[in-house]
Amino acid sequence: MRFSPLLDELIKSLQVLPGVGPKSAQRMAFALLERQRAGGRRLAHVLDQALEKIGHCRQCRTFTEEEICPLCANPKRAISGQLCIVESPADVVAIEQTGQYQGRYFVLMGHLSPLDGVGPEELGLDNLADWLATESFEELILATNPTVEGEATAYFIADIARSHGVGVSRIAHGVPIGGELDLVDGNTLSHSFMGRKTFAD
Amino acid sequence: MRFSPLLDELIKSLQVLPGVGPKSAQRMAFALLERQRAGGRRLAHVLDQALEKIGHCRQCRTFTEEEICPLCANPKRAISGQLCIVESPADVVAIEQTGQYQGRYFVLMGHLSPLDGVGPEELGLDNLADWLATESFEELILATNPTVEGEATAYFIADIARSHGVGVSRIAHGVPIGGELDLVDGNTLSHSFMGRKTFAD
Repeated sequence: MRFSPLLDELIKSLQVLPGVGPKSAQRMAFALLERQRAGGRRLAHVLDQALEKIGHCRQCRTFTEEEICPLCANPKRAISGQLCIVESPADVVAIEQTGQYQGRYFVLMGHLSPLDGVGPEELGLDNLADWLATESFEELILATNPTVEGEATAYFIADIARSHGVGVSRIAHGVPIGGELDLVDGNTLSHSFMGRKTFAD
Repeated sequence: MRFSPLLDELIKSLQVLPGVGPKSAQRMAFALLERQRAGGRRLAHVLDQALEKIGHCRQCRTFTEEEICPLCANPKRAISGQLCIVESPADVVAIEQTGQYQGRYFVLMGHLSPLDGVGPEELGLDNLADWLATESFEELILATNPTVEGEATAYFIADIARSHGVGVSRIAHGVPIGGELDLVDGNTLSHSFMGRKTFAD
């Protein structure tokens, strides 16, 4: 015997969530049924709506329920002539929170990973090339993650940008602000040496 | 800026799940939107159905979409005259998997915890008393958790059972089978000494 058919079904369905196995799914199902019925119903409704309506921005590929996301639709963001390449919509949010950047974004929704079947097409690099061809950008800023895959993706995109005559830069990597040198890993520290700059007076 | 309104809403709604904070909710939302749209829709549907239909068994209080759960409805389970008291529907499943027990269950859906406002009424002990009064049970087996609250709850229920002339037993606590003595905590080991039995020939 397991639980009642519907409860079994709920526990199984919850395991579609990343990082949720049978035990946590059971705990979640019990918590929803015992204490969070209103919240659970709200979740069911919002989830249904979100999966129905949220798609990708036709221009930058980020998640949005509009055809063009508000950021791409904002003409002020086109003034700087900058395009920042990131791997995920979360990166856009993180960069926006710094208030440092006023240009536009292109969201890859991943990185090149041939073994997982993720090639240039899956990252929408055709769209990116089209965009670079139709609009004259001054600078393309590579902000992919500093991982092996992120670096490979950055190199690949840099080539595309150069072929369209767009200048390419990469965000700086080094010791994080507020970090302590002896806690930083050797790879980062060696990057921060290679990337050293003349000390301003 | 955060994400699009609907995506923000989804990330917030997912945090109703126990153990899910803003970061995991974001990861879940992205995973559902990127790779698990079908599974996510299924989850939304099942969740809605489950919250609509699953209630408590009128007799034993476990989760079920019927009025009386299949276990209570099965006349064979009444033959032994035994009633096992557990804290959660998961405990019923665990005990059923042993195949050792053929009687019926009463599921407290928690334990006495006055500070959290969980008293005898919240655990359905009135229903339990009614059940003990209307049906003649031979034995009530206390299988609440071996925690302070579980023990207190067991003592409280034992009093109710005795007042109805029902014999009361408690499941054995001691060294788990397959465990090693030096890895078992002192409290359990001392319990296992107090509960020692004459060695069978």
